[in-house]
Amino acid sequence: MTIDHEDAALLAGLEALLGPRGFTRDPDDLAPWLVDWRGRVRGQALALLSPADAGQVAAIVRAAATARMPLVPQGGNTSMVAGATPPAHGRALIVSLRRMRAILGVSPEDGVAIVEAGVTLSALHEAAEAVGMRFPLSLAAKGTATIGGLISTNAGGTQVLRFGPMRALVLGVEAVLPDGARFDGLSALRKDNRGYDLRQLLGGAEGTLGIITAAALRLVPAIGARAVGWAGLETPQAALGLLRRLEAATGAAVESFELVPEVALDLVLRHIPGTRAPLAGRHRWNVLVEATAPTGAPDPAGALGAALAQAIDDGLVADATVSASEAQAEALWKLRESISEAERADGMAAKHDVAVPVSAMPGFIESARQAVEARFPTTRVIAFGHLGDGNVHFNVRAPMGEDGRAWLAREGAGVSAFVHDLTVAAGGSISAEHGIGQTKLADYARLADPARLAAQRAIKAALDPLGLMNPGKLVPLAPEPPAP
Amino acid sequence: MTIDHEDAALLAGLEALLGPRGFTRDPDDLAPWLVDWRGRVRGQALALLSPADAGQVAAIVRAAATARMPLVPQGGNTSMVAGATPPAHGRALIVSLRRMRAILGVSPEDGVAIVEAGVTLSALHEAAEAVGMRFPLSLAAKGTATIGGLISTNAGGTQVLRFGPMRALVLGVEAVLPDGARFDGLSALRKDNRGYDLRQLLGGAEGTLGIITAAALRLVPAIGARAVGWAGLETPQAALGLLRRLEAATGAAVESFELVPEVALDLVLRHIPGTRAPLAGRHRWNVLVEATAPTGAPDPAGALGAALAQAIDDGLVADATVSASEAQAEALWKLRESISEAERADGMAAKHDVAVPVSAMPGFIESARQAVEARFPTTRVIAFGHLGDGNVHFNVRAPMGEDGRAWLAREGAGVSAFVHDLTVAAGGSISAEHGIGQTKLADYARLADPARLAAQRAIKAALDPLGLMNPGKLVPLAPEPPAP
Repeated sequence: MTIDHEDAALLAGLEALLGPRGFTRDPDDLAPWLVDWRGRVRGQALALLSPADAGQVAAIVRAAATARMPLVPQGGNTSMVAGATPPAHGRALIVSLRRMRAILGVSPEDGVAIVEAGVTLSALHEAAEAVGMRFPLSLAAKGTATIGGLISTNAGGTQVLRFGPMRALVLGVEAVLPDGARFDGLSALRKDNRGYDLRQLLGGAEGTLGIITAAALRLVPAIGARAVGWAGLETPQAALGLLRRLEAATGAAVESFELVPEVALDLVLRHIPGTRAPLAGRHRWNVLVEATAPTGAPDPAGALGAALAQAIDDGLVADATVSASEAQAEALWKLRESISEAERADGMAAKHDVAVPVSAMPGFIESARQAVEARFPTTRVIAFGHLGDGNVHFNVRAPMGEDGRAWLAREGAGVSAFVHDLTVAAGGSISAEHGIGQTKLADYARLADPARLAAQRAIKAALDPLGLMNPGKLVPLAPEPPAP
Repeated sequence: MTIDHEDAALLAGLEALLGPRGFTRDPDDLAPWLVDWRGRVRGQALALLSPADAGQVAAIVRAAATARMPLVPQGGNTSMVAGATPPAHGRALIVSLRRMRAILGVSPEDGVAIVEAGVTLSALHEAAEAVGMRFPLSLAAKGTATIGGLISTNAGGTQVLRFGPMRALVLGVEAVLPDGARFDGLSALRKDNRGYDLRQLLGGAEGTLGIITAAALRLVPAIGARAVGWAGLETPQAALGLLRRLEAATGAAVESFELVPEVALDLVLRHIPGTRAPLAGRHRWNVLVEATAPTGAPDPAGALGAALAQAIDDGLVADATVSASEAQAEALWKLRESISEAERADGMAAKHDVAVPVSAMPGFIESARQAVEARFPTTRVIAFGHLGDGNVHFNVRAPMGEDGRAWLAREGAGVSAFVHDLTVAAGGSISAEHGIGQTKLADYARLADPARLAAQRAIKAALDPLGLMNPGKLVPLAPEPPAP
């Protein structure tokens, strides 16, 4: 795109401010950050800005406000909904937080880590482990995803059951608001009732209300021992019954409870080298369960094994195994964590990240599968994931023999709209943990409670009246920045 | 006050809408609701409205908006900061949610209770217990405080250490927004990433952004067994060290950890009938600790007793005891829960509810005590409470021999400003769990981060542009309703 005189002046000023490490317009530098993680949405940007500190972020935001220039904050760019991809028209600047990766402090006494926004989840895990603590949230993209992005999408993962999503682990944030003001909410207070919780408002806002520059995060004591179990059973309802038993038997020790259908396990065993079936027989449904114990407490394997044995005796579970070593535990986890990769190897799918009330999920999985396969014959549904959170990844696979990409281009939006309709009809959410970003915006606008939408627009307009912060994401009909 | 023609028409319309059970202007009916829980702030109102359902609440809000009439939502009226007391000028309507006290559903499978806003905390406790679950938040006013009020103040209590404050336990809310729109966020989803979290924004908003009409709340399995310990030690720093040991030794089993100074225990033993010293000797500081175990797990008394014995051997604790029965557990809790009553019996105090980072609290207690007693000679500080949350009730007692009420009237504001200055200088919050309401508004306006205040005002103005929802609370310089 051509750049007018004023935009050129803005870019020159930012280049002078940020220096060569903080400013680039080189197409090769920009290229990886113009396309989303799943490779489906491509945008353009005038420059990639990489501020070194929060002061530079504030200067960028003020300069952009003066020039009416849209900003797209970016962490690891691992959004599942193209939440960090710039607009197609290209009149925007990417603000990467990746240079801001200082661990500012780790306090085991407070159970707090204070880190800059560009710290990766893996780096946070390591910093916590170094002092005998842990940060109890993990997900596949942990080596790339950054704290700022994880907070901005209120990321989930496999430990939400016990510790909640990112929102529950954020004790404080520092941010630059759309007017360039710096919000200092980094003091890690366990309790703070001073007015509206901006920390919570910025969490999950996908960068539309400001740019998070640092955060104070909750740490918990390191695990002493863990045990991973695998159970084969007949129905998701039986799986939920098992979860409730295990919770009652072990207190808060159950950290993960993941549902794996037979077809997903088959795909993993077929496509992922080095995997093997965890049980002798085949079962329509499986669950992976992890229980942990603090240092010095008895190994949870005993209690987990006894509870699973009792569940077999009672006919709730058909077969089960418990890891006898860390290697076995890892092998069981690999079966769960490889599902997405195995699915990709096998073909294309329309993917959905839906939540319904927990007790409704077993029924929803079955009724929604039947409805989808009736409406779109020859597709196959794979629903797997976080049953204990009422959240599954509900993927509709392209018909066998079809060109998956062509099918997705032709049918994907219709399939997704249908799945989202079913979800809302069940009182659920069309985004459990991935956010709205760009790719769910139309369905969100179509299906959301009008009162919720109106309130969200009012908040967006109040804090970002120029509509410059990550435009085109999350908030349907938000204020629009000037067209290029 | 005189009522003009338009207000008279509004009142007549509301009387017709709500009927005799839902509308009163009788001064005897209004009287208890015009003064705050602590009896310090008195207001006036034109009428007390008691809607029967959310539809009536919405009709009230719409009618009030048309007439530019301020509304003061009220639950149990147990605010510690006069957050539910109407304005002195009296052109306002109290909207009591107390008639809306239906338990709409309790699901042990989902771990969720859905209740109307006027349900008391005690009633919720009973409903949860009836299905083998519990709601893990409790406080002294539980028989009176309502769910809507508890959410609106993000109430705390003695179990925040493990389960978080009210905010962490709210899975969904239904509310009437200031424009009269009904926000339906009651579906109890464990995960939901659809835009700004209005549920969290309404929580802690003290009724300034709308009226909560119902909520979905998290339940956890009932306790199988509990053990309560009491330890005597030398310093708050030793107490915090003990907490970290107990957490490491028992995992998440420590639910409460309350700090009690010698002077507070003395007041309780002197003023509260039927109490007796828990330990043989005297100790400058004491802690009460509660550990729990799920049904079927070993009684936590053994592990707690062993950990306390080890702490004595290591010189961290001087003496300790563990309850051997539920009656003994209750007796230990009574010592903690009677502190406020014993203080009242002994005289007046300027009270503060402050938070600092957890590891800073032991040092803050001592340095702030010294600073206060130097600045205001002959006062005595009592700091007690939720050490593990970094939150103590920091009370400055009137000098011996002085008329407490006169002292408080003369010195109270200055003492509180001084304590709040010290708190902010320590990176803390002047409201940990009580809110801002009316009584902390001036200090909040004086001490708050300007970026925080500006953002809060913008949100308030966006959602309540007429400034009719609980005016004069929480948000300094919010939009003002018309003067009478």
